[in-house]
Amino acid sequence: MTKCSLVVIGTELTRGIIADRHGQLVSKEMTHIGVHMSEIVAIPDDGTITPVLRALKKNNDIIIVTGGLGPTQDDMTRKCIAEVFSTTLVRDEKCFETLRKRVGENKALGANEKQAYIPKGFTVMENPNGTAPGFYGSDCGTYVFALPGPPREMEPMFYSSVLPKVKDLLDIEDVERYEYSSFITAEARLEELTERYEGIDWATRFQDYKISLYASSSDKTKIDLAFKALSAELGPYRLVEGNTSALDILIERVKEKGALIAAAESCTGGLLSSLLTSKPGASDFFLGSVVSYNPSVKMDVLGVSRETVERYGVVSDECALQMADGVREVCGADYSVSVTGVAGPGESEGKKVGTVSFGFSSKERESVSFTLHFSSWGRESIRRKAAVVAMLALSAYINGEDVVSISREWTNI
Amino acid sequence: MTKCSLVVIGTELTRGIIADRHGQLVSKEMTHIGVHMSEIVAIPDDGTITPVLRALKKNNDIIIVTGGLGPTQDDMTRKCIAEVFSTTLVRDEKCFETLRKRVGENKALGANEKQAYIPKGFTVMENPNGTAPGFYGSDCGTYVFALPGPPREMEPMFYSSVLPKVKDLLDIEDVERYEYSSFITAEARLEELTERYEGIDWATRFQDYKISLYASSSDKTKIDLAFKALSAELGPYRLVEGNTSALDILIERVKEKGALIAAAESCTGGLLSSLLTSKPGASDFFLGSVVSYNPSVKMDVLGVSRETVERYGVVSDECALQMADGVREVCGADYSVSVTGVAGPGESEGKKVGTVSFGFSSKERESVSFTLHFSSWGRESIRRKAAVVAMLALSAYINGEDVVSISREWTNI
Repeated sequence: MTKCSLVVIGTELTRGIIADRHGQLVSKEMTHIGVHMSEIVAIPDDGTITPVLRALKKNNDIIIVTGGLGPTQDDMTRKCIAEVFSTTLVRDEKCFETLRKRVGENKALGANEKQAYIPKGFTVMENPNGTAPGFYGSDCGTYVFALPGPPREMEPMFYSSVLPKVKDLLDIEDVERYEYSSFITAEARLEELTERYEGIDWATRFQDYKISLYASSSDKTKIDLAFKALSAELGPYRLVEGNTSALDILIERVKEKGALIAAAESCTGGLLSSLLTSKPGASDFFLGSVVSYNPSVKMDVLGVSRETVERYGVVSDECALQMADGVREVCGADYSVSVTGVAGPGESEGKKVGTVSFGFSSKERESVSFTLHFSSWGRESIRRKAAVVAMLALSAYINGEDVVSISREWTNI
Repeated sequence: MTKCSLVVIGTELTRGIIADRHGQLVSKEMTHIGVHMSEIVAIPDDGTITPVLRALKKNNDIIIVTGGLGPTQDDMTRKCIAEVFSTTLVRDEKCFETLRKRVGENKALGANEKQAYIPKGFTVMENPNGTAPGFYGSDCGTYVFALPGPPREMEPMFYSSVLPKVKDLLDIEDVERYEYSSFITAEARLEELTERYEGIDWATRFQDYKISLYASSSDKTKIDLAFKALSAELGPYRLVEGNTSALDILIERVKEKGALIAAAESCTGGLLSSLLTSKPGASDFFLGSVVSYNPSVKMDVLGVSRETVERYGVVSDECALQMADGVREVCGADYSVSVTGVAGPGESEGKKVGTVSFGFSSKERESVSFTLHFSSWGRESIRRKAAVVAMLALSAYINGEDVVSISREWTNI
């Protein structure tokens, strides 16, 4: 099995000023193409690079080095790599030309010039986002790739230069990678479901409001079938193609209709509105919202009836319906959504933590509502899931779909 | 100089499933007490622990190992440490007793029993949050500390057992460490300001809504003087003692008065309300809020006059004042706060990005408002700063302070 190690260089890491971001990225991608990561090492910008590289060279087929390529005195990565990989540094004229164009004639000489020095016989990797190019080469069967440290320089170079070259070295068939976005589903459940589909290499990445799911296989038909089956298993809107978010889906729907929306929140406490306004241009479709945390605000501002509160409670289909109707009217919106639930800790009105009701109202259609029961993973998780459900279900409602039926398909949430 | 390395063990790290959290913590604390971190190494749960430990033992005074102490077959940390540190594993009866109490008689034998085996001659470190205890010992002048991998187990043990023992070994004078919380001030500015005070070791930690500032010195008088001078320089509420948040400060004030509060938001779009409701018990003091994103909602729901909007604009002291009065009345609150500003991108009403007006209203006092000009670091940063200012200034207002004068002292924000 091909073995790879990553060396992350930077005194800001070993002094605890910043946390490493490259380790997880490189490990995930290498694991994905069947390479075994044997070590991830962070070391300071000092002479220890040489012994560390020397030791790793003995036991690895690939070494990826990040950081220490800048113009300052501490940055000695290029010198150490040349030494360990039995070569010397030479000025690469093409790199020097690029540098000169970037920083100007005067600044290109002096400390900056160092960045145009590359180990002899090595291949240059262009850096579109910074002054220091990367490079790779090999000695005694071990390849070394050197990349700059800042993530915005390192990450694109890793994907455009390192990963394709490693695949090439390994003679990996050019498998395509497909990305999907998954909502209101636990990562563990996705992993359990994807295990059923053989011949596809799956990977997941958890983010605050979604999970990215990657599938790769040389057989696209297999992936298409698996995607169809997974979508059917999870229900509408829980797994969609591409890199998207619940907010992106909603914005697209809202813009299609030229609709103005409003929201009434209770357990989410403003989180839904905060998400709806998180991107520039929110004022084109979002009028406003009422966070009716206290029942008095539900009644006084949104017009929920006292009877509803007393008979059904504030976490109920009935209350959610009246909240949605109320906020639409109060804000003069075309469509509205409401969220009211038990975020915990502790039950409320005899309803379990994770019980959340959603309401939807429009000028043209009947108002509807439904109640979901989230498996409880704490207050913050319930609030987040509820905000995502509100955005997805509102998208469906605006699209004329039957959100109550859709909600029945959302099991295991 | 004392040299330390950290070995983080876990296949979930080298497969990129999770990112390491221990590297930064350990590095920061070790650097803080004058220990040089020479390597931070992540390796899988396999036999490579032995050669890695052996190599590090030659060049380090201290090795901290996390992970691989659990009951599963892959977890071989204790075996490898015993081997490299020239000892054998023995069952520690006290550990076994603790384990038995925790998991029950039946489960204590079998795979779990492994966790009660400790290298002979080593000292046990108790783990209040899990089943696997930690341990430390030395061989040939190198100390090794072994801790479980999960952060909620590792972190408290690191602070209560490892750090004190390392200080003890180094015979470090017991310098006290004082913690402060800083708001709406850039980390770079704090670092620039603290540089003026010699004889104090400063460290900062950026978090989403605050910066923690740590000061250590054997001379408490120096720290007290520096804190006073820094507070005076920054103005009220921007630097406070202890580990606290703007929300904690507000909650304390609100509870003292038994007050009920409400909020009117515009540019923060629900973020302020979302923060106010982020902790359990928010319903004790928070009634609700109106997110009046569109001017029509400011007028129709909050009662801002058309004249105010047309003459002064929605980002103005006048509009903020009426928003605060309006939401207090609409929600029936004792106190209210409002935020309306330009979060960007792009100017609005001829007002620059980062211009934000705040209003405050109460039953008993005159309503007041002020406008701040945040240095623009993007939409999200302006929204966050505005939410923090709203909470701090509301705390001051509830306390009967003159918030308009306070706001004039908040320069460089």
